[in-house]
Amino acid sequence: MIKIGIVGGTGYTGVELLRILATHPKAHITAITSRKEDGLLVSEMYPSLRGRVDIAFSAPDKANLKECDVVFFATPHGVAMAQAPELLAAGVKVIDLAADFRMKNVAEFEKWYGIPHTCAEVLEEAVYGLPELNRDAIKTARVVGNPGCYPTTMQLGFSPLLKADIIDAGNLIADCKSGVSGAGRKAELGLLFSETSDTFKAYGVSGHRHTPETIEQLQRISKDQIGLLFTPHLVPMIRGMHSTLYARLNTEISNEDLQALFENAYKDEIFVDVLPFGSHPETRSTRASNMLRLALHRPNNGNTVVILVVQDNLVKGASGQAVQCMNLMFGLEESTGLMHVPVMP
Amino acid sequence: MIKIGIVGGTGYTGVELLRILATHPKAHITAITSRKEDGLLVSEMYPSLRGRVDIAFSAPDKANLKECDVVFFATPHGVAMAQAPELLAAGVKVIDLAADFRMKNVAEFEKWYGIPHTCAEVLEEAVYGLPELNRDAIKTARVVGNPGCYPTTMQLGFSPLLKADIIDAGNLIADCKSGVSGAGRKAELGLLFSETSDTFKAYGVSGHRHTPETIEQLQRISKDQIGLLFTPHLVPMIRGMHSTLYARLNTEISNEDLQALFENAYKDEIFVDVLPFGSHPETRSTRASNMLRLALHRPNNGNTVVILVVQDNLVKGASGQAVQCMNLMFGLEESTGLMHVPVMP
Amino acid sequence: MIKIGIVGGTGYTGVELLRILATHPKAHITAITSRKEDGLLVSEMYPSLRGRVDIAFSAPDKANLKECDVVFFATPHGVAMAQAPELLAAGVKVIDLAADFRMKNVAEFEKWYGIPHTCAEVLEEAVYGLPELNRDAIKTARVVGNPGCYPTTMQLGFSPLLKADIIDAGNLIADCKSGVSGAGRKAELGLLFSETSDTFKAYGVSGHRHTPETIEQLQRISKDQIGLLFTPHLVPMIRGMHSTLYARLNTEISNEDLQALFENAYKDEIFVDVLPFGSHPETRSTRASNMLRLALHRPNNGNTVVILVVQDNLVKGASGQAVQCMNLMFGLEESTGLMHVPVMP
Amino acid sequence: MIKIGIVGGTGYTGVELLRILATHPKAHITAITSRKEDGLLVSEMYPSLRGRVDIAFSAPDKANLKECDVVFFATPHGVAMAQAPELLAAGVKVIDLAADFRMKNVAEFEKWYGIPHTCAEVLEEAVYGLPELNRDAIKTARVVGNPGCYPTTMQLGFSPLLKADIIDAGNLIADCKSGVSGAGRKAELGLLFSETSDTFKAYGVSGHRHTPETIEQLQRISKDQIGLLFTPHLVPMIRGMHSTLYARLNTEISNEDLQALFENAYKDEIFVDVLPFGSHPETRSTRASNMLRLALHRPNNGNTVVILVVQDNLVKGASGQAVQCMNLMFGLEESTGLMHVPVMP
Repeated sequence: MIKIGIVGGTGYTGVELLRILATHPKAHITAITSRKEDGLLVSEMYPSLRGRVDIAFSAPDKANLKECDVVFFATPHGVAMAQAPELLAAGVKVIDLAADFRMKNVAEFEKWYGIPHTCAEVLEEAVYGLPELNRDAIKTARVVGNPGCYPTTMQLGFSPLLKADIIDAGNLIADCKSGVSGAGRKAELGLLFSETSDTFKAYGVSGHRHTPETIEQLQRISKDQIGLLFTPHLVPMIRGMHSTLYARLNTEISNEDLQALFENAYKDEIFVDVLPFGSHPETRSTRASNMLRLALHRPNNGNTVVILVVQDNLVKGASGQAVQCMNLMFGLEESTGLMHVPVMP
Repeated sequence: MIKIGIVGGTGYTGVELLRILATHPKAHITAITSRKEDGLLVSEMYPSLRGRVDIAFSAPDKANLKECDVVFFATPHGVAMAQAPELLAAGVKVIDLAADFRMKNVAEFEKWYGIPHTCAEVLEEAVYGLPELNRDAIKTARVVGNPGCYPTTMQLGFSPLLKADIIDAGNLIADCKSGVSGAGRKAELGLLFSETSDTFKAYGVSGHRHTPETIEQLQRISKDQIGLLFTPHLVPMIRGMHSTLYARLNTEISNEDLQALFENAYKDEIFVDVLPFGSHPETRSTRASNMLRLALHRPNNGNTVVILVVQDNLVKGASGQAVQCMNLMFGLEESTGLMHVPVMP
Repeated sequence: MIKIGIVGGTGYTGVELLRILATHPKAHITAITSRKEDGLLVSEMYPSLRGRVDIAFSAPDKANLKECDVVFFATPHGVAMAQAPELLAAGVKVIDLAADFRMKNVAEFEKWYGIPHTCAEVLEEAVYGLPELNRDAIKTARVVGNPGCYPTTMQLGFSPLLKADIIDAGNLIADCKSGVSGAGRKAELGLLFSETSDTFKAYGVSGHRHTPETIEQLQRISKDQIGLLFTPHLVPMIRGMHSTLYARLNTEISNEDLQALFENAYKDEIFVDVLPFGSHPETRSTRASNMLRLALHRPNNGNTVVILVVQDNLVKGASGQAVQCMNLMFGLEESTGLMHVPVMP
Repeated sequence: MIKIGIVGGTGYTGVELLRILATHPKAHITAITSRKEDGLLVSEMYPSLRGRVDIAFSAPDKANLKECDVVFFATPHGVAMAQAPELLAAGVKVIDLAADFRMKNVAEFEKWYGIPHTCAEVLEEAVYGLPELNRDAIKTARVVGNPGCYPTTMQLGFSPLLKADIIDAGNLIADCKSGVSGAGRKAELGLLFSETSDTFKAYGVSGHRHTPETIEQLQRISKDQIGLLFTPHLVPMIRGMHSTLYARLNTEISNEDLQALFENAYKDEIFVDVLPFGSHPETRSTRASNMLRLALHRPNNGNTVVILVVQDNLVKGASGQAVQCMNLMFGLEESTGLMHVPVMP
């Protein structure tokens, strides 16, 4: 059994980790920390876990995280970088669901996240935790920066085209839509039911911090300079993310070959599902599962490819992907504990 | 492996059976019928099942249901009674998710469902499939009438009080609320998003067919004549059922003893969770799981007990309970394949 | 024109007052206060009001409320009682949308609201602002306590039966359901979209402060001692309130006479609509309007009457009713500025 | 008073016409037709209209539409073209909310709508009913083709840039999102609450009939060939439409000049609201009103302008716009009866 610690388990990615790990055959949750909720049973905060997760929150200083095999950080940005060095020194692996270890470019990190990066040496060895594009590095990693939710969809949607070098890399548009849980479990007016239900809006249109993360990763697989225009929107639904991606072809290619390109790219991937050409995937087809589904369109048979990508932002977009990384880091079958069938309706 | 047939798999209870059975370690789905969708892959209709359920719908006459060990009917009322005799004769067990085998009183059935009951001899041996109140009979049953969603909550909420004979059995009130999926997957104006979202209403207040079903069952455990006033409502949510039950105490009893009564009644039940006295269970704490949770209140320490009961109407209220019955009928551990952790948020 | 001040205009009852008053032909909004938002244009906080409400919030000490004809308090409990004496002394009328002037019983107020009542002399003259039951007193009132949302539905539903003295007054049950906006615009975790969407729960079942308010008012029209069991629930919708009321008849009466009783009671009321016997009113049939609709049921022709009552909690349940009172207090046609057609779908 | 007939009043645009016209000071609803609901009071189908609209549906052959001053067609495509000639001959004006008179290009109409256009001569004189771009023609029109909901947002968003000739007209992208009411009141599985709630998807990505309508209109104001990629999505909300428009600048221009361009374009428009540069309009800021709001963004100060446009699809996107046209056609103040304050929350 893998002894697991979770730092900051009171948010949505934390409780989703618990939901997944509660039925993971190799996971033993050893400690879960919360500064405010020391001593409270996890199942008192989350009655959905009654009878399934018996552990109580403990204050950070009381939790003996160094005895874990791996510690997940489901915390605000900045927490993981403060604690990672000591854990690594004790032989504990680290998976951060926040942004501390996502971007190699420290200047960009500090610009977008507004905090100094205090842990350059760990960042250097950190591995970007997107298994479909970075599997081998994750297997041997000691510290993983789990991707952002939006960046997961953008990378898995654009990368086959960039690798094949058949699109204008400098002119990518990603019009993305997320359920409200993506904003986290924070007592903010803007996230109230009465403020977000039965309405729709964009946010961060002039600039969002998932842009530099995505560009940094896409640049690794593109010969040309990446130019990305990313527009996030808030959808009145709890879970789910839908990215509508636009790319300009710079070569002649048939729809059949486009489809084959994606099917080949993901033919061995258990968590990426390429739908038939022209399909319209719904976010609910991935609800509460680690699946990402995508489909290709070629409107008017023109030179723009539209890629529709859906996932559950809390699973493949966060906690499920983190467990997928853990499985790789500990030599388990990659899908261990992650084979939930999506919940529909 | 248990060879399983599903008749009428295109509705919500059908697809929920598929979701559950897809990861059930002893289940092999042999056939799934649909008159309209003969030949269509189940996963084409329900992309959530892509990669997990490979079978196609077959027309009823093509499906060799007699080779199954058990057949689930996820059909409109009247279908199971027409096909059950032949299946039973072939040694196939039958679990009906509709009302054909729920009520022993044929006259009441015909009055409320508006169709003649054509299968009195099977009805006679049919067992009411509520394991917590009828476990032994289910274990040896050849044919099970799976309870209605509302009746499940009413029975599990009222029965400890009726068995203890401490309430006025003739004066029960059940004010119940259901998510929209409870109305099924039917192309009706009244079920449109634009008709049911952001609004709330009661329906069937002057009379609903779950009333006679519930009365028949409660009468089996009550010395006095059952009187039940049942008021169903439609909630703008997909899944979930919340029943607010009112019962008048006819004896002095402390809140501690009331709580103990329920805790003892369900202490060995894996799918019934008695929350601390005075709790307010949320439907989402059972979402996509087979759990039913309940809590007791005693407003103003008066002589009325309020029991709050929640479940997922498609799982414990339908398909999960049916699989629970199947497990009992085939000598499996009752919880086999049913240990999904509720999906929250 | 009536010069109007609003204290505390940043909450939902405040913005709803603005929506209504913006098209009220006799209303001139003179001042709207907010401690935090001094100087901010109302339309910057609420873009829905762009071009329609030009005023800015002002700090309480800057707003010259004494020059108003009437001041609405859309504030937390306790604010109106602190400021009312000075305003009244200056000849300004007061309408409080909070609870300060709702209950004559100070001990009950202090028990349920947890604050001392510091303004007994104003309370003494305060008038309960439910026009359908208290119209004459409102017309001459200097200070009005606007009813709670739930109490409005309970009183208009039960009162015809109590006045006719045909029900068991000691045994009333009100199972009520409210949209989330009823909880106000507060940055609380429990009100987040991800916490309240696609789920349903009861709250305050062991005791809620709208119970004593309702009992005090119902007692005024009942010969017998009122006993009320009130159970509030939270519905995943923004606006709307549905109360399901249960009353035991203590006399023989036909359904036709019951219906006639209600139709006569409300035949001159423009904002109370008695639907045909056996109807199921939907909350959306009152959305964004000052209408309250109700319908009667007699399940199984037994001795229990079920009254279904719906309203928009922010209009007839709060700000619309307050304007209705204002109209009466200033000698206007009662419906002035309140004839919005409900928004459907 | 204007005598008004409505053909096909049972759908959402029909009932929305009734909501608006019920308080329009110059409107007298003379007849409303429905083949199925002959004799049924409108308020029996739509209880929201009880006490406000007293008329009953009448069968088409019984309604004396020729005595009206104007007839609105809130019908499926193809109905208006069949009846318009006779009405026009009788001196009745016609406003069609369907597509019959939107597109001058008959071949395109027939290709996208799949029915023959049987009324070329009326089509020739028909005027496209977007007042902000076509006001003078509407004033003198006898027959108006009311714009589609999506085309309204695309035209009002792109047109200032096209008129100024500062964008690449051949490379427009419109990523649009609509509430479910936009699909109409049809008993279809795909529109059920349980199918559309808590999920998000695109539809018609490979081609949607609002594309040729929009191109035809934009071409009228563009020197260069219009190329438009339009991607519609379905949002789990009742009303509301949000269009995210992308245009490539082909010239140097400051953000201030961009903003001024739009503010000037719409400075006299009562129903178009240009928000401050960089704003994120929400659909709810227009709910149940005839307002359209938009805001400009320039991500990374690059050469792409993003225009965010919101409206209520049933009002400015349909019935409100139709009444706006009617006001113009009858010489009324354009905003008559259309000054509803948006409903928020």
